[in-house]
Amino acid sequence: TKLWGGRFEESVTPSVEKFSESVSFDKKLYKHDIQGSRAHASMLAEQGLITMEDKGKIIGGLDEIERRIESGEFAWRADREDVHMNIEAALIDLVGEPAKKLHTARSRNDQVVTDVRLWCREAIDRLLGKIVGLQAALVRLAVRYEDLIIPGYTHLQRAQPLLLPHLLLAYVEQLDRDAGRLSDCQARMNYCPLGSCALAGTGLPIDRFATARALGFTAPLRNSVDAVSDRDFLLEFLSANSIAAVHLSRLAEEWVLWASEEFGFLIPSDAVSTGSSIMPQKKNPDPMELVRGKSARVIGSLTTLLVLCKGLPQAYNRDLQEDKEPLFDSVDTVNAMLEVSTEFALNISFNMERIAKSLPAGHLDATTMADYCVYKGIPFRTSHDIVGKSVALALSKRCQLAELSLSELRSINPIFDEDVANYLGAENAIERFQSYGSTGKRLSCTKKYGFIKEAH
Amino acid sequence: TKLWGGRFEESVTPSVEKFSESVSFDKKLYKHDIQGSRAHASMLAEQGLITMEDKGKIIGGLDEIERRIESGEFAWRADREDVHMNIEAALIDLVGEPAKKLHTARSRNDQVVTDVRLWCREAIDRLLGKIVGLQAALVRLAVRYEDLIIPGYTHLQRAQPLLLPHLLLAYVEQLDRDAGRLSDCQARMNYCPLGSCALAGTGLPIDRFATARALGFTAPLRNSVDAVSDRDFLLEFLSANSIAAVHLSRLAEEWVLWASEEFGFLIPSDAVSTGSSIMPQKKNPDPMELVRGKSARVIGSLTTLLVLCKGLPQAYNRDLQEDKEPLFDSVDTVNAMLEVSTEFALNISFNMERIAKSLPAGHLDATTMADYCVYKGIPFRTSHDIVGKSVALALSKRCQLAELSLSELRSINPIFDEDVANYLGAENAIERFQSYGSTGKRLSCTKKYGFIKEAH
Amino acid sequence: TKLWGGRFEESVTPSVEKFSESVSFDKKLYKHDIQGSRAHASMLAEQGLITMEDKGKIIGGLDEIERRIESGEFAWRADREDVHMNIEAALIDLVGEPAKKLHTARSRNDQVVTDVRLWCREAIDRLLGKIVGLQAALVRLAVRYEDLIIPGYTHLQRAQPLLLPHLLLAYVEQLDRDAGRLSDCQARMNYCPLGSCALAGTGLPIDRFATARALGFTAPLRNSVDAVSDRDFLLEFLSANSIAAVHLSRLAEEWVLWASEEFGFLIPSDAVSTGSSIMPQKKNPDPMELVRGKSARVIGSLTTLLVLCKGLPQAYNRDLQEDKEPLFDSVDTVNAMLEVSTEFALNISFNMERIAKSLPAGHLDATTMADYCVYKGIPFRTSHDIVGKSVALALSKRCQLAELSLSELRSINPIFDEDVANYLGAENAIERFQSYGSTGKRLSCTKKYGFIKEAH
Amino acid sequence: TKLWGGRFEESVTPSVEKFSESVSFDKKLYKHDIQGSRAHASMLAEQGLITMEDKGKIIGGLDEIERRIESGEFAWRADREDVHMNIEAALIDLVGEPAKKLHTARSRNDQVVTDVRLWCREAIDRLLGKIVGLQAALVRLAVRYEDLIIPGYTHLQRAQPLLLPHLLLAYVEQLDRDAGRLSDCQARMNYCPLGSCALAGTGLPIDRFATARALGFTAPLRNSVDAVSDRDFLLEFLSANSIAAVHLSRLAEEWVLWASEEFGFLIPSDAVSTGSSIMPQKKNPDPMELVRGKSARVIGSLTTLLVLCKGLPQAYNRDLQEDKEPLFDSVDTVNAMLEVSTEFALNISFNMERIAKSLPAGHLDATTMADYCVYKGIPFRTSHDIVGKSVALALSKRCQLAELSLSELRSINPIFDEDVANYLGAENAIERFQSYGSTGKRLSCTKKYGFIKEAH
Repeated sequence: TKLWGGRFEESVTPSVEKFSESVSFDKKLYKHDIQGSRAHASMLAEQGLITMEDKGKIIGGLDEIERRIESGEFAWRADREDVHMNIEAALIDLVGEPAKKLHTARSRNDQVVTDVRLWCREAIDRLLGKIVGLQAALVRLAVRYEDLIIPGYTHLQRAQPLLLPHLLLAYVEQLDRDAGRLSDCQARMNYCPLGSCALAGTGLPIDRFATARALGFTAPLRNSVDAVSDRDFLLEFLSANSIAAVHLSRLAEEWVLWASEEFGFLIPSDAVSTGSSIMPQKKNPDPMELVRGKSARVIGSLTTLLVLCKGLPQAYNRDLQEDKEPLFDSVDTVNAMLEVSTEFALNISFNMERIAKSLPAGHLDATTMADYCVYKGIPFRTSHDIVGKSVALALSKRCQLAELSLSELRSINPIFDEDVANYLGAENAIERFQSYGSTGKRLSCTKKYGFIKEAH
Repeated sequence: TKLWGGRFEESVTPSVEKFSESVSFDKKLYKHDIQGSRAHASMLAEQGLITMEDKGKIIGGLDEIERRIESGEFAWRADREDVHMNIEAALIDLVGEPAKKLHTARSRNDQVVTDVRLWCREAIDRLLGKIVGLQAALVRLAVRYEDLIIPGYTHLQRAQPLLLPHLLLAYVEQLDRDAGRLSDCQARMNYCPLGSCALAGTGLPIDRFATARALGFTAPLRNSVDAVSDRDFLLEFLSANSIAAVHLSRLAEEWVLWASEEFGFLIPSDAVSTGSSIMPQKKNPDPMELVRGKSARVIGSLTTLLVLCKGLPQAYNRDLQEDKEPLFDSVDTVNAMLEVSTEFALNISFNMERIAKSLPAGHLDATTMADYCVYKGIPFRTSHDIVGKSVALALSKRCQLAELSLSELRSINPIFDEDVANYLGAENAIERFQSYGSTGKRLSCTKKYGFIKEAH
Repeated sequence: TKLWGGRFEESVTPSVEKFSESVSFDKKLYKHDIQGSRAHASMLAEQGLITMEDKGKIIGGLDEIERRIESGEFAWRADREDVHMNIEAALIDLVGEPAKKLHTARSRNDQVVTDVRLWCREAIDRLLGKIVGLQAALVRLAVRYEDLIIPGYTHLQRAQPLLLPHLLLAYVEQLDRDAGRLSDCQARMNYCPLGSCALAGTGLPIDRFATARALGFTAPLRNSVDAVSDRDFLLEFLSANSIAAVHLSRLAEEWVLWASEEFGFLIPSDAVSTGSSIMPQKKNPDPMELVRGKSARVIGSLTTLLVLCKGLPQAYNRDLQEDKEPLFDSVDTVNAMLEVSTEFALNISFNMERIAKSLPAGHLDATTMADYCVYKGIPFRTSHDIVGKSVALALSKRCQLAELSLSELRSINPIFDEDVANYLGAENAIERFQSYGSTGKRLSCTKKYGFIKEAH
Repeated sequence: TKLWGGRFEESVTPSVEKFSESVSFDKKLYKHDIQGSRAHASMLAEQGLITMEDKGKIIGGLDEIERRIESGEFAWRADREDVHMNIEAALIDLVGEPAKKLHTARSRNDQVVTDVRLWCREAIDRLLGKIVGLQAALVRLAVRYEDLIIPGYTHLQRAQPLLLPHLLLAYVEQLDRDAGRLSDCQARMNYCPLGSCALAGTGLPIDRFATARALGFTAPLRNSVDAVSDRDFLLEFLSANSIAAVHLSRLAEEWVLWASEEFGFLIPSDAVSTGSSIMPQKKNPDPMELVRGKSARVIGSLTTLLVLCKGLPQAYNRDLQEDKEPLFDSVDTVNAMLEVSTEFALNISFNMERIAKSLPAGHLDATTMADYCVYKGIPFRTSHDIVGKSVALALSKRCQLAELSLSELRSINPIFDEDVANYLGAENAIERFQSYGSTGKRLSCTKKYGFIKEAH
């Protein structure tokens, strides 16, 4: 019979029991549940609500239960509904009467949200570590291919030349903001709900500051109803995860493209590729396809949680039990995405020869040529038009801008002089970039090494 | 080493292997995978691509593997990636050379989508059965409370009286359309991809009509690229599930409201209620809260799949491996939601006394009073205004419309006569409804029994 | 003052009025609102609820209002809230007393959902026409490039050769199912809510079959509560649109890829390309990028509507007013996506020379080579391994499979003979495909012409 | 002809033009576009890239264009695509040659994202103001009903008594975190992309720190590719909006419930209610229903943007043009939701008499009775059981806990004494709460006045 069964005459049907139980997934919170119970028991003793002896027995029992869970001896029971009831009931089995005092001035409503906040705080630490790991791997690639010029794209059309490190560091920047969002979220959620009880607080003389302190929270939450009913910290966490997942998906999209026969920029090693059951020649960049694919479920989990919370009145509603699976899935998925992206980054090489050979295509130097005209005093809009005509001529002759003769260029506009040659070709173009944050050589190098230092 | 490992020199890293494996969830398809392999092997033999003897050994081996899986003896291996490779490799272990011929003119690309279609077809049958079950439970309630008048609401404000059966049958109608959507989806997806191989079909003389027939499909799909790359049937399935989940969530919302102290219409039995760990008096309608909450994840799964598919080029991309978990979760969840809603419906009673007592509140008869004015020849817009003023008067006197004296009514408009009394009060109002599909007594009864007959 | 103002003493604040009005977007329904009112007035007259003379005046007034709206003379007023009140109030201004009888046995609750169903029915007809248009354009392309062999991809890696028409017809198949979904949705929604009034029906002797017939509905809806509260037909419509949008987004993704310098398969004409404000050489396939991008809002609109409906109790709640903007946006967007995709398809050419030159890369003939081994009696699994080793050899020699000498092949396995040459090279490989639905030459042609006939 | 038309021979088709134009919605950015151009022109002049005279003409022209736009004289042209081209082309029309120099070292790619960041920065300031407004309105309500005890709910079942101010302040807390999220987002996005040009930066000697400073940004963004391709700041903004919308939707859900006949806690004034076209007695809390409903579109807009960004390779892709409509809609909607919620809060009154009368129902004092047992030395778990039995007894006698006689209580457990009376009844229960953050009287008052001071 349930610990809450006092007024009940009949037990729930098996299918309702199965539908309602959450222990199959919320047992993941066992460590934080026990951590919270330890702090709660100590506070109860300090406040004289239980004796020191009771406290000792409770904490001894909790230690034993933690040991049993970690060694696999603990028998989780679905009829005990959730992680909290499983542990409390086991504690009663183990140490008897004193255990019945543990739930004083506490409800599952504040207990679960305390557990979840503790879990999230740790999860964010883990994610932050993984983000730095991926940044470091990207920086390592950047160093390895310090001088590699690749085509930059907009609209998937060749646009301007880029140094590969410059592009890789764009991802490092994005990951930095992802880390910032997670840290902000962690700071904002690090307040303690414990002692809010069911929703109204309690009439017993507890010390919420003591438990908050013991559990490493910044302070207790200021309003008990708010504490038990809101899940905005999870919505924020899953939003931050979704944004990070979008970043990783974009990286994956780019690398899958680059690994294609047509681009041919990037060669994954066998260690991060898979084959086909029917086509013997295939070598697929599966991990990055899965990174791209798995970003979808991270977004799906956020949707689930937004839909879940929207439209519930205060305070706790059972719907909120459904907050945990999307949380766990989102965190596990982003963790694995970061890990595998890092591993992929460490197992690819760039086909420098092929990239170099392809650089002349796409008139990557056209904007630099327009800069040239600007230097010659032509308004940019007119320069754009002049270069547009030059490109049209080059296209009709199936040649590069650099291959147009000076007289051909002059036929378009007399502004052109011999020195235009210094502005043409991807190598020259790269040399020209000088603005802060541009792909210019010296700039990105300084930056890059800065990141390396930070990252290690 | 992998079955596709011919050109590979190195094996994948452990974390990539873990990230990529799908057997932990796609083993759910084992029965359909084996079913497909049986049909494929038979066809290969019919077409002379393998010998009858080989076919015999293959099918014997498949039978044995199925037995082992179902008895729990089968050892699923993550290093064998997915359900297909697990079964094929086990078959090779079991029957040797002939097993190596099974994958002739087949790829995992067409194999997996065949399995999934077979699985979905069955899943829809199960869901359709559950829908009928819930309809029957609602009809049973309707019969039990055949004459119970309740307030009808719009904007959660009391609007007009309703017969409870009329409202319950509204849900039956909605479930009917849910079933219609699932059936349409089932019919549209019941085409066979097998034999489309990787994406282009095959040069071997297979008979796709034979396998389609053997597996109960309407016909083979007409285009091999389409067959392996599209997942629109899953999007349609998950859309239909989401719409059904919205219906169930609305039913849940209504019943949770009705079970509140304030409404007090509905009393769930202890068998479908749960208590509180801190508040001894609580009895919560948790199953319906969870139905409402779980609808969120059904929507989340649809989002996942839409995001997943959007923007992939043809044909198979590894991202598509991620289609299965949202599918399984959506189906399992809607199944359980239907089941538990049915059980809840069978375990509630309506508080007839309390409902009757509350009926006078909210001027449920106001529209019927306006109908009365229309009968007297007043344009409806003017009637609306007259009744509006009558309501204002009743509000100021804190009484019901029926409690206004004739002279008070006539002070608003001389149209009123003694017979207005026959239009006032919820009982009279209910008697008046006569339009097709309205809450009128005889109408909903006929209808109701019709449904019962269909449902049993 | 509002038409519903009888019991109100104060009017709403300006910001609430602005927040609540819907006429700024629901005026789009004016034609269907008037159409519904005509049918309603005629029925009221037939049933003797209004005189024939009143009916004449009402219909005359409605005609005049429709004329004014279409000529731009009609003054929409936000203080009259919505399209219904705007038209009803204008009718009263225009024809006086008789107009006040129009709202007899009708509520805005059944009126709006009747309007929306009529609007959707028409919208689906329009979409179906646009789908056929795109199918025809794809078939036209297929005919134009009847013999063009392109690389087929899985995982964006070259897999097997495909005839371009075969790939284009895969999209035609998908669009066919999109049309099927829309048609099913149209049939399922084509039931008439009119006469369900607020939620309970009416006590006045109306004839719902007459109005249903007059408006071209299959029948009246059977349950008045269901009729006014459910929006499942919109959820189904927006799901179907979302699935179609995903198909178009995938087509767009493919064509954007193909238009890149690296693929170089597809050249959009200037008429469907745009340039860059800074890079004079750029020519971007913007329309297809936008098709891909706009699919996101179609999915967003579906999400909006699912979130909106989930968790509302029966019957009408004002939240439902928010159903129209996502509906309109979804329909307009998919319409434009279909239109522009069609226009794009009619304005591209394929770079046959470049495609032909690229065909040898990627070992597209590897599977055909494995088929060869199967013909020679080798089990497919072993064949796969043999070809895998051949590919590895070719890779190490940087040559094609067809360029390996017979002795080299025999060093891998003695099975190889002179005739293997007939299986190598993309041209030979294409010739080999013979299974139903495969990329084989004759097969796709027959099919293709079938579609052309249907499409014109 | 387009400003980018140099290499183009043909203009785009009308339907592509219509599909591609964005000026119909991005003209909303005109002020920030002009602001950015002013800063850019000044910097160009400082750097010697244009003359001071040219700068003067450009800025004069921009001033005139701004004036024309604001006076409604400006003719927006769809064939000029977007807000940027409209303004630049108009500037050329107005001041000639110098205007052609404005686009030097700038691309629409960095220009648009600069505009959007400026717009968002302002939008967040506005939203923060609106949040404080709603907090102040809630505090005012709290002060007005300082001592009002209401039932607190979990699972929509009566749980414990609450002071109304305590509940209202829970929303104030949530809005505080909403503001925190928006502020964090604003700080993180306040970096300047201008000068990143198309994607690679520029070879011209610009000063990005100068423009960043002039526009009030913290600093220039550090990586040009990152600057033009990422929209994570919008995803974060729309996430924060979605979370705020969920909070408002929950408030709305509660107030809609409370306005029902059954709860009867809350009476909206006529100024924030609407009536029914058919039911003359209706008075609906429409504004809050719409707040609840509109939260759906805020979530839908977030979904749109997540779907949009996911899976795009670097850098700018035209898909990103679709970022603006969901942004504008999300911001406008949340703004209006905040505004109308504030207005609603200022126009409601609580039905103190009715609430007081309903308080005895639901055994709100059961937990306080359990606290009593704990004070008497009974372990909480046992206390819970004792009170559960007392509730069962009260239920069977259809009375309150306070109405059970001492001997009845003692028959359950001898622990009970006369003084239990001081713990029973909602008034006594409220007096007992003393923990930090609980609903206890003195606590919430102090807190409350703190907020008032902050808010004014």
